Amino acid sequence: MTQFTDPELSLNDFLNGRVRLWQPLSGYRAGVDPVLLAAAVPAKAGQSVLELGCGAGAAILCLMARVPGLNATGVELQSPYADLATRNADQNAQALTVVQADLSKLPAELKQQQFDHVIANPPYYLAGAHSPAADSGRGIALGEDTPLRDWFDCAAKRLAPRGYLHMIQKADRLPDMLSACAGRLGSVEVLPLAARAGRKAQLVVLRARKGGRSAFQLHAPLILHKGVRHEKDGESYTSQISSVLRDGAALNGFSDQ
Amino acid sequence: MTQFTDPELSLNDFLNGRVRLWQPLSGYRAGVDPVLLAAAVPAKAGQSVLELGCGAGAAILCLMARVPGLNATGVELQSPYADLATRNADQNAQALTVVQADLSKLPAELKQQQFDHVIANPPYYLAGAHSPAADSGRGIALGEDTPLRDWFDCAAKRLAPRGYLHMIQKADRLPDMLSACAGRLGSVEVLPLAARAGRKAQLVVLRARKGGRSAFQLHAPLILHKGVRHEKDGESYTSQISSVLRDGAALNGFSDQ
Repeated sequence: MTQFTDPELSLNDFLNGRVRLWQPLSGYRAGVDPVLLAAAVPAKAGQSVLELGCGAGAAILCLMARVPGLNATGVELQSPYADLATRNADQNAQALTVVQADLSKLPAELKQQQFDHVIANPPYYLAGAHSPAADSGRGIALGEDTPLRDWFDCAAKRLAPRGYLHMIQKADRLPDMLSACAGRLGSVEVLPLAARAGRKAQLVVLRARKGGRSAFQLHAPLILHKGVRHEKDGESYTSQISSVLRDGAALNGFSDQ
Repeated sequence: MTQFTDPELSLNDFLNGRVRLWQPLSGYRAGVDPVLLAAAVPAKAGQSVLELGCGAGAAILCLMARVPGLNATGVELQSPYADLATRNADQNAQALTVVQADLSKLPAELKQQQFDHVIANPPYYLAGAHSPAADSGRGIALGEDTPLRDWFDCAAKRLAPRGYLHMIQKADRLPDMLSACAGRLGSVEVLPLAARAGRKAQLVVLRARKGGRSAFQLHAPLILHKGVRHEKDGESYTSQISSVLRDGAALNGFSDQ
């Protein structure tokens, strides 16, 4: 996969334009999920944050916009996306360090670092379980070439003591996520995300803490859309989700820190 | 622990009096949990049901009252409770077979049987993690002398192909429950139970199927009480819960069968 050329890109607004990202017209494009992930992280100025599989940088740049003063690093396997993340950091005047690397083979300088927060929005589909995408970059970004467990391995190693992992993932992977936490990340909390009230969760945000010893918590679901069905016109986000997506608000729903 | 004597017992109504159970005045007494468990089971007339740790029989006798024509067996470790379950089956004119046995050492005649449904409401507290109860029967019924994994071992062995396990348990044991299903029970669904809207789940009902291959599902929580806080007087159950507890309705919230 070669680098993106300008005609292959569009500049898209996030957080009501507070973050602007170059993204490929075709291939993996960030939606609301990385924004919700960023909003869930209780980071504070001066802390360090590592994003695994940062793509074009949507999640970590939204987090940096909400919480000034973070020391932020993004790891991305695919160099065209890593290059975009660097360009997007410049575009948003953020000092994001982007490292092109496989998260299961991090370079030595990253292996010497520990982070207060690790965030990740891993691919949603099992490799082999989906049709190969026409664009190989999209294929890797949506499909699971790196097993989910490797993301937890990397996160557990790179977290400082008491550091937090936040991961957004499809709800049907929850058993795998919990199993991957067992024995190395504790104080696990799950925040289900449901499209509408009364529907099953499509996504979950998992929070886990290195060295955490609190009991597992299953929180009330966060409801994304108002009403009981899709209305054709107009925006239907609930007020909490709207304030997260438009105003860059923090996402409530986890335990207070 | 010796058998209960009549002065130690009271006769309590379930399902608006359709089920009446002798229960010890002190010791383990059934609340709403076994009634909710029974309401979650999609059993049909002619099917076989095994309850692990049936206590005085609340869950399985409520299920038998809702679904006539079941072949039902209850296993209970503690003989005073097994005797109560037999007495309660007679009290309710139900043909419940009660077996006094350790579920990890079932007698040969039970090991030769397979069941369409297995239900269980295992103790809620880890052995050693709670103060010893004054009454040893209550101690065993509330505390975990039999590891949770053994309940899944027994259920997986006793289920017929395509048979269902339903278990009600504290929400903080969900990671252990999912881990215990891995590799032998599939099509896992979790129905969270929350005291009030917006609160985290206190309990979960887990459904799993022997030989099931469907993706894990996290359902919308079932809300037990109306309003945002406890009101001192009067009943506050939501209408769905009230119809389950009073009218013996089936519990909605899982996938339809």
